Amino acid sequence: MIEIEIKARADHDEVLKALKEAGASFEKTADQADVFYNAPDRDFGETDEALRLRRQGSSAYLTYKGKKLDKVSKTRKEVEAQVCDPQKIEDILLSLGFRKTYSVFKKRDIYHLKGAEICVDRVEGLGDFVELETIAEDMSGMEKKRDELISVMRSLGIKGELIRESYLEMLLEKGH
Amino acid sequence: MIEIEIKARADHDEVLKALKEAGASFEKTADQADVFYNAPDRDFGETDEALRLRRQGSSAYLTYKGKKLDKVSKTRKEVEAQVCDPQKIEDILLSLGFRKTYSVFKKRDIYHLKGAEICVDRVEGLGDFVELETIAEDMSGMEKKRDELISVMRSLGIKGELIRESYLEMLLEKGH
Repeated sequence: MIEIEIKARADHDEVLKALKEAGASFEKTADQADVFYNAPDRDFGETDEALRLRRQGSSAYLTYKGKKLDKVSKTRKEVEAQVCDPQKIEDILLSLGFRKTYSVFKKRDIYHLKGAEICVDRVEGLGDFVELETIAEDMSGMEKKRDELISVMRSLGIKGELIRESYLEMLLEKGH
Repeated sequence: MIEIEIKARADHDEVLKALKEAGASFEKTADQADVFYNAPDRDFGETDEALRLRRQGSSAYLTYKGKKLDKVSKTRKEVEAQVCDPQKIEDILLSLGFRKTYSVFKKRDIYHLKGAEICVDRVEGLGDFVELETIAEDMSGMEKKRDELISVMRSLGIKGELIRESYLEMLLEKGH
């Protein structure tokens, strides 16, 4: 599974108005607490990978993200597994030699429009963003899907530059 | 959590008779399919650790086992997390650089007697065994609990030598 994702800074009031006018469907609001881990055999900061344990309400997800596959978006391999017992999964990761690195906390409002998941994100320490995401089965057609995402983003009046860094990378750059 | 475990070859007919006479309670019969993984940064065969994904009916468990802590039994640190989606957990492990090594298949009848879990195991390629297991919160009192387990085992008429190797190690020694 390939995750295609674009992101930009955005004024939430304007975006929410545009989403309403475009007929986007609201899915949910979620408080997401993400913990990231580094590997015992390589530095994910260098290999551009990520391992994340996300707690969201009473649910939790373990997610692996591979290195980015193009130079514009955040397109990359992503595997996400729901986990029943995040505390024990973390205990196993630490036993295997993985180390906790950083945490990212955000409030995320999730909408759907034209096949895209639209996340209106308020990230602690960073500010307000909008992420648009879709999934491709494989690499073929990846660029087409990315351009469609960009077109949806622009149609919502979001004019900001695309940001390729993850929230984690942005926090690290800020000296978090 | 410390897992205290002893194991010996045993004739199942005799053990089942002894369990009945001793008033053991039957919990369940399970077909267990275990897949073991090796780490990208060290050889679990050398460090005496194990990472296992067990499928049992519609349930699945990811388990880390630390190196053995005494010279008689299989006492070791154990962390077991139920997982909702074993296929995705395996995909994440493989993405992180873990490698599938071997599989172990067995039919296990689980009984309880005097605070011990008693597993009457028929292991593909190895034969018939009985494992007795209990849990200690920490290292203190570990030897006492182990000796109690041995005493329960002998009371069931199981006279065989204690086997410290895991089924996986036994299969590897057989050149599986």
